[in-house]
Amino acid sequence: MSIFGLVEYADASPEVRAVYDDIMATRQTDYINNFWKSLAHDPATLKRTWESVKEIMAPGALDVLTKEMIYLAVSVTNGCGYCTASHGAAARKAGMTEAMFGELMAVVGMANETNRLANGYRVPIDPAFEK
Amino acid sequence: MSIFGLVEYADASPEVRAVYDDIMATRQTDYINNFWKSLAHDPATLKRTWESVKEIMAPGALDVLTKEMIYLAVSVTNGCGYCTASHGAAARKAGMTEAMFGELMAVVGMANETNRLANGYRVPIDPAFEK
Amino acid sequence: MSIFGLVEYADASPEVRAVYDDIMATRQTDYINNFWKSLAHDPATLKRTWESVKEIMAPGALDVLTKEMIYLAVSVTNGCGYCTASHGAAARKAGMTEAMFGELMAVVGMANETNRLANGYRVPIDPAFEK
Amino acid sequence: MSIFGLVEYADASPEVRAVYDDIMATRQTDYINNFWKSLAHDPATLKRTWESVKEIMAPGALDVLTKEMIYLAVSVTNGCGYCTASHGAAARKAGMTEAMFGELMAVVGMANETNRLANGYRVPIDPAFEK
Amino acid sequence: MSIFGLVEYADASPEVRAVYDDIMATRQTDYINNFWKSLAHDPATLKRTWESVKEIMAPGALDVLTKEMIYLAVSVTNGCGYCTASHGAAARKAGMTEAMFGELMAVVGMANETNRLANGYRVPIDPAFEK
Amino acid sequence: MSIFGLVEYADASPEVRAVYDDIMATRQTDYINNFWKSLAHDPATLKRTWESVKEIMAPGALDVLTKEMIYLAVSVTNGCGYCTASHGAAARKAGMTEAMFGELMAVVGMANETNRLANGYRVPIDPAFEK
Repeated sequence: MSIFGLVEYADASPEVRAVYDDIMATRQTDYINNFWKSLAHDPATLKRTWESVKEIMAPGALDVLTKEMIYLAVSVTNGCGYCTASHGAAARKAGMTEAMFGELMAVVGMANETNRLANGYRVPIDPAFEK
Repeated sequence: MSIFGLVEYADASPEVRAVYDDIMATRQTDYINNFWKSLAHDPATLKRTWESVKEIMAPGALDVLTKEMIYLAVSVTNGCGYCTASHGAAARKAGMTEAMFGELMAVVGMANETNRLANGYRVPIDPAFEK
Repeated sequence: MSIFGLVEYADASPEVRAVYDDIMATRQTDYINNFWKSLAHDPATLKRTWESVKEIMAPGALDVLTKEMIYLAVSVTNGCGYCTASHGAAARKAGMTEAMFGELMAVVGMANETNRLANGYRVPIDPAFEK
Repeated sequence: MSIFGLVEYADASPEVRAVYDDIMATRQTDYINNFWKSLAHDPATLKRTWESVKEIMAPGALDVLTKEMIYLAVSVTNGCGYCTASHGAAARKAGMTEAMFGELMAVVGMANETNRLANGYRVPIDPAFEK
Repeated sequence: MSIFGLVEYADASPEVRAVYDDIMATRQTDYINNFWKSLAHDPATLKRTWESVKEIMAPGALDVLTKEMIYLAVSVTNGCGYCTASHGAAARKAGMTEAMFGELMAVVGMANETNRLANGYRVPIDPAFEK
Repeated sequence: MSIFGLVEYADASPEVRAVYDDIMATRQTDYINNFWKSLAHDPATLKRTWESVKEIMAPGALDVLTKEMIYLAVSVTNGCGYCTASHGAAARKAGMTEAMFGELMAVVGMANETNRLANGYRVPIDPAFEK
């Protein structure tokens, strides 16, 4: 259970409802997931976070699927259970196949391994990488 | 400086040279970066790690650029300076533009932020994500 | 469930009971939380950890509420579920309002985001910060 | 060195200069630190990040000093060298004394220790914390 | 629940069964734990990971118990619940007593604490350590 | 450079000197490393941390070398540069050979990899591990 519980649409202030409405319109769904219902206890953070997510996750130089896979890679690395579940679902919705998930996880695993090998061997940065 | 120093090709054992040769052939370069020259102190780890990286980073369901960007996202999240430098260079070589890097970093930053918001608000996982 | 179970007062050795007694006296409560009941399997660690916590969390140059909020910020960043629950409760008991919690979480989220932006852009430290 | 170098005011686009101007006006200084000069390579991220930081770090239910100490606690936990230097400087400017820093660090260290003790002993969350 | 469910032996492909057979033969057990049954969705990762684990965890310059305790120390530090449970069980099977676990946890806790004290005080590396 | 500089013996208060004396006597050396010279700005933390380290790192159910290798494994996982250097040196002094270091690093790398595979595949804990 979250500390303060979930804020349902019916109980939300107009300020919170406006964000919920924009989430549903932008995502073309009538579903608000628990992350937003939890943040709604702090309307300023709800609004700022949603607007940042909306701007950042829109297609640009990177497509939506690539962005969702990067989001998932970070969430798995940090061990965030909620974010792994939610962005796993979002990545699948954006087109991630089981084969793509398998390769994503292989890269995430290997990166976490070699990050520590580099730390432990205290590998000096190659001058070639600084150009 | 690394703890044990870098193993240059001229000083390497035949076992290590075989890995170096495969790295250079696979990557079509005559450059061995410091990560491998450090791991060379443990030929078994050098060989196993290189063979894993070679298998994982080959194009498959995901292309090389996407894989390098995921590698970079993990390295930045973990704060691995060497890996951020080396995979930043590798991603640029694989085609990452400055605009793509900007969007990648924006996603990485946002994911690290929302991971903690989810932790702190103790958001319960939506049943919809479990299907 | 914890690996070794919880050590209840009735089953505790005199050495463990002495720590439990001091916890209850210091906190003016008859409740020992599960963290201590788990550590009780290693009386030396129980005693050393409690004495350190007691010394560190006492009011000093920083008041108790500020200390509890810092403790919570670290626990959320690390994704420690138990510690987020226990220090969330402790911070509320020390006076953290819902508005304060909201601002705390906003700072924690932003810090986690900008930490990675600084890592990824490999920002050099300003000489002005070294003075 | 950062990957893309620092964007100085003289070389900045009007969009970037507008953010720099707001940073200097808000902070009442003529100094722009390297974090912003690095982010300036991505004006959208520069603007969004600055506006978020400005909103989050303004005094509210928590004062500026408390917010800066929380920022520092997170940065130290994550091992972000740049952020530890910059928010260490900001916290001192906001009034953090050496004694306050000492207590802050003691809490950060203890929280990082007990987070792992809770993980390792797999301590179950007390029902009392869920209310 | 895992995203894709567990692959039981009866439902596994010959490629996956070959890995399961080797796990059971190597460990002299008829039990395959859930980690491998989850990875089985990606047979290439299953095979590569098992072969790496088998090679790395074999007795060598370090004995099996020491290796399992190091594995546990890392898992606890990262807050990986599954790995803490599985390698806690593996370490006990390899001979870790309750007293050894207590000392292991004390070291893990202290290391996590002093890592942050070193970060926060920005302690410069002693030249003596570089030799 | 550290924020507050290093406190040399000649400039230390009697309280700090007493800790320095005990470090030198316990370790049978006349060398105080920079970690302690930095903590000396907060004599209470210096004393408490030293006494905890002294108690925890003494030989017990685990020998000194095993403890130092666990300390190193945690420090490498967290990416603490100072601690990797100092506990790498301490482990070598306690008898860690290059072959042992190689195996330690292999385990640390693999644990960091499989921790994320377990997170990403959301592997459910085997009931067998809970007994």
